[in-house]
Amino acid sequence: MTESPLPTCRFQSFSEPGDPRLVAGRVAALRGALAAQGLDGFIVPRADEHQGEYVPAHMARLAWLTGFTGSAGQAVVLTDKAALIVDGRYTIQADAQTDTAVVTPVRMEETPLERWVEQNLPAGGRLGYDPWLHTVDGLARLEKAGTAAGGSLVAVAANPIDALWSDRPAPPAAPVKAHPAAFAGEDSSAKLDRIRKALGEAKVDALVVSDPHALAWAFNIRGGDVEHTPLPLGYAIVPREGRPTVFLAPGKITNEAGDAIGAVGEIAPPADLEARLRKLGAAGAKVRLDAATAASALATLIAEAGGTPDAGPDPIALMKARKNAAELAGTRAAHLRDGAVMARYLSWLAREAPKGGLTEIDAVAALEAGRLKTGLLKDVSFTTIAGAGPNAALPHYRVSEATNRKLEPGIFLVDSGGQYEDGTTDITRTIAIGRPTPEMRDRYTRVLKGHVAISRLVFAKGTSGAQLDAFARLPLWQGGFDFDHGTGHGVGSYLSVHEGPQRLSKLGTTPLEPGMILSNEPGYYKPGAYGIRIENLIVVEERAIPGAERTIYGFETISWCPYERALIEKDMLDAGEIAWIDAYHAAVREKIGPELAGEAKAWLEEACRPL
Amino acid sequence: MTESPLPTCRFQSFSEPGDPRLVAGRVAALRGALAAQGLDGFIVPRADEHQGEYVPAHMARLAWLTGFTGSAGQAVVLTDKAALIVDGRYTIQADAQTDTAVVTPVRMEETPLERWVEQNLPAGGRLGYDPWLHTVDGLARLEKAGTAAGGSLVAVAANPIDALWSDRPAPPAAPVKAHPAAFAGEDSSAKLDRIRKALGEAKVDALVVSDPHALAWAFNIRGGDVEHTPLPLGYAIVPREGRPTVFLAPGKITNEAGDAIGAVGEIAPPADLEARLRKLGAAGAKVRLDAATAASALATLIAEAGGTPDAGPDPIALMKARKNAAELAGTRAAHLRDGAVMARYLSWLAREAPKGGLTEIDAVAALEAGRLKTGLLKDVSFTTIAGAGPNAALPHYRVSEATNRKLEPGIFLVDSGGQYEDGTTDITRTIAIGRPTPEMRDRYTRVLKGHVAISRLVFAKGTSGAQLDAFARLPLWQGGFDFDHGTGHGVGSYLSVHEGPQRLSKLGTTPLEPGMILSNEPGYYKPGAYGIRIENLIVVEERAIPGAERTIYGFETISWCPYERALIEKDMLDAGEIAWIDAYHAAVREKIGPELAGEAKAWLEEACRPL
Repeated sequence: MTESPLPTCRFQSFSEPGDPRLVAGRVAALRGALAAQGLDGFIVPRADEHQGEYVPAHMARLAWLTGFTGSAGQAVVLTDKAALIVDGRYTIQADAQTDTAVVTPVRMEETPLERWVEQNLPAGGRLGYDPWLHTVDGLARLEKAGTAAGGSLVAVAANPIDALWSDRPAPPAAPVKAHPAAFAGEDSSAKLDRIRKALGEAKVDALVVSDPHALAWAFNIRGGDVEHTPLPLGYAIVPREGRPTVFLAPGKITNEAGDAIGAVGEIAPPADLEARLRKLGAAGAKVRLDAATAASALATLIAEAGGTPDAGPDPIALMKARKNAAELAGTRAAHLRDGAVMARYLSWLAREAPKGGLTEIDAVAALEAGRLKTGLLKDVSFTTIAGAGPNAALPHYRVSEATNRKLEPGIFLVDSGGQYEDGTTDITRTIAIGRPTPEMRDRYTRVLKGHVAISRLVFAKGTSGAQLDAFARLPLWQGGFDFDHGTGHGVGSYLSVHEGPQRLSKLGTTPLEPGMILSNEPGYYKPGAYGIRIENLIVVEERAIPGAERTIYGFETISWCPYERALIEKDMLDAGEIAWIDAYHAAVREKIGPELAGEAKAWLEEACRPL
Repeated sequence: MTESPLPTCRFQSFSEPGDPRLVAGRVAALRGALAAQGLDGFIVPRADEHQGEYVPAHMARLAWLTGFTGSAGQAVVLTDKAALIVDGRYTIQADAQTDTAVVTPVRMEETPLERWVEQNLPAGGRLGYDPWLHTVDGLARLEKAGTAAGGSLVAVAANPIDALWSDRPAPPAAPVKAHPAAFAGEDSSAKLDRIRKALGEAKVDALVVSDPHALAWAFNIRGGDVEHTPLPLGYAIVPREGRPTVFLAPGKITNEAGDAIGAVGEIAPPADLEARLRKLGAAGAKVRLDAATAASALATLIAEAGGTPDAGPDPIALMKARKNAAELAGTRAAHLRDGAVMARYLSWLAREAPKGGLTEIDAVAALEAGRLKTGLLKDVSFTTIAGAGPNAALPHYRVSEATNRKLEPGIFLVDSGGQYEDGTTDITRTIAIGRPTPEMRDRYTRVLKGHVAISRLVFAKGTSGAQLDAFARLPLWQGGFDFDHGTGHGVGSYLSVHEGPQRLSKLGTTPLEPGMILSNEPGYYKPGAYGIRIENLIVVEERAIPGAERTIYGFETISWCPYERALIEKDMLDAGEIAWIDAYHAAVREKIGPELAGEAKAWLEEACRPL
């Protein structure tokens, strides 16, 4: 970092694109289109046809219609009213981005989509939906609600918004590249053998791969069709016997990726998918659809042709979650590189922040620039969460020009990560600017105790994240505190920074297995005041214990960056916790120190002293 | 306790009643009856029509047919083969009790009932079942399996076994008594108001109370129709508006109980239940059925008459789980009384066991006699688990004449409880006879550390037992060990010692709420060698923490009996654990000491010294 003008971001922006003035006209136009089709309403989810966390611009129908750009939400437009249903994170943003005279924001925790439909769809009402944007289970819940209201759900053949959207962006056409064997660690033919074996065990004839993460993993390819995750948007059909077909626009596929796919299967244009599913159905096939991501349209295509759609787990998800030795070596290398970036960044912040003047946007830009300097950054792994003061109390905060705050004495929280070809990183550090209050030190130390408790855990094979999440909470509970998110999520290998099914949360019922990467990120949030979160990534590994009667696992920590000494209340730590933190800091100094020089190196030495 | 001849048991027996020689004839007779009805098979579950843990003798059709008397299992008799499907606890017992030439024992973990049906029912086969013995969900799974096999499930109007069972016992007719207000703490009319309100919130017109525990709680009555739990077997219908009807044989009901029920509702003979359900159905009512206990026959009756059966949670379950102040005062008193019994018993064991000669049956009989001496024991709360040496490694061991072992140097485990009118107890202590090995001390101390961890936990409102169970396991995991049962189950108030929905187990997703009683009983089992379990009952209570931002709960321990000093390895305990154990022992001495005299008192003083 330098004191020269702060860099701008390549991968992140700070504008809020919504324009409430456009909403009334668009909703009116949609109502006209619905009337022409004999429909009394239409559901507009934020989802694309892959149920992805990020949707490409041409699929942002919810934003086009309502102005709302949050990462989750659904609108329902009826003839006389319209609702925008969002969760508690997004109620303020929804109010600001949409035209509330036309579209009423509704809090999902109070009135979920299905209840709103049940309460508002008139008897006899025909509520349209796009069957490519709802899963089988999601549609079943909607149909139940529609029936309870005395109305019905009606699938449309074409989404009526698409005909109204005059300046609709083109579908993404980012090149699909081969993911090198050195990073993937297992060739696609071996992966396909495992997938076919799983299909045999599940007694199904074929699998539709509808999750682009699964597609990327199975064929060792990566794309760039959405922000921050190297996904190729597309499908595959993997038969239990024979070669798979990958449905991707041929023009997107690089020669290298084409050769890689061609070695194990066929490539077909996306337009062929429907015909191939009908053919499978006509042959009476039982076809596994991923219950989490497969559109109900896929199930309908198969069933109408005479086949049996079988919604269930995509067997690829669990294979992908268990990283192999090459993937783990890659992610360890990426984390060493990223740890050095973080150390340089925190040493720069330690020097610059107390001077005053730095803003959250400056801080985001400087961190992205630091990662870019490695020469290996493909993208940030998600929009950086950089919160000063009360903004740090919003766990999913994203700074915009409108919310941008100066870093002032108190607490600054920064949660960020990089996409490198060898691995995906995600790390949070909370730092003190000036002298923290005793309360801040108390809360930080409780969060740290929880974080260390997870780091030190061992557990028997078969244990799920749901059984472990509470160890991160106990030190907070003991003071009368808690945090309202899971302790950790799964992380991919140059794929999504949010990956399932592994997670450290009460919803994480999948047993943890060696090779799974998770985040370990307890927090504490005081609304209107400040927030604290501490996050490392951890990998499940087997532990050898002499005399053990069970298979025992533990976590290998792979993120390397010092904690904030000024926020640690040493008297609240027991001997085991102090020893763990000291050993971690010694390892950080040993691993990251050689990458640093000058002020940053001196800062690291000081930050890594024994407590 | 005295050294005079050991007492015999009033509430427990030690015989294994099965006679394998009867099985062939009975299975052949059943096959004849099935052929006459055009059936190709029949399912014989262990369940009665209330899905109870204990079934009355006249409902023990599985035992009559197969000889098997375990507490869980199902038989399926086809024309050419028959299976007895039992879980891992019961495979040895099933082999011994049935005629394996006629009925093949099948391990449930490998082949659950549904899979056996799917694999063995011939195409076109008509598999009979008694619709009073299967829940709606259970039947749906069976029907799916039958369909997958190409056959079908057929409900029978009368269970064919009943016509063959010549010496069938009469239905139980134990008197139904009023449960005194001093113990119940809330009168039935107030409880019914709460139930009606819950029915309104669930938007149903009536509730069928099919769980006898719920029936007993709602109407403040207790019965004696099954072993070890004071249940009146019967039903009730509670309409959302108007008076409920209780279906119990009028001849069973004492005047006092009749007056109590009559004050809030009507009493009708059980034979009237079907007509009343048809009447509800004919009126188009939506009727809540308890998904856990309601027979599919109930749903069919309502649906065929035109009503809507609505399988879901019985709202009484959660109300019953949260004990009120009177119930908690009662259970605390019962536990003080029971703790004194345990202390006298353990002091007697400490003197007598080392002499040699005592058997497990002697130990069971002496403990029951000790509880009887209180003058207040209504029954034991379950069959005492008293295991010497390798028998202690069987978590659900029940001693019989055939398995009875002498108490020899090593470990003795005793898990027992009493039914008192003011409360239900359940306690486990593991004691050393002679000098324990270092390994035994290590394992006992790990189990104790887990037990103490649960005792000391605090947690935020909304936390479930599934999130807490692992705290009991961590000290075992750290050594490479674990135990294969939940850490704790719910306990009733002069009702079942196994009560839901609260539990400390990975299956316990119900949030814990103040007033819920649970067991805290981690263990360690070394097959063929020895077993360890330590159990107290605990009550969820709210904790006042200065400065707390969340509602925080903790556990009040209510069982009072010292741990085994000879098995505690003090070096493995941290200061907080030692302080907790010392404080617990001081409380035991203070609370139980005044009830003891002589040798028992001296034993207690020694057992309760600080570590």
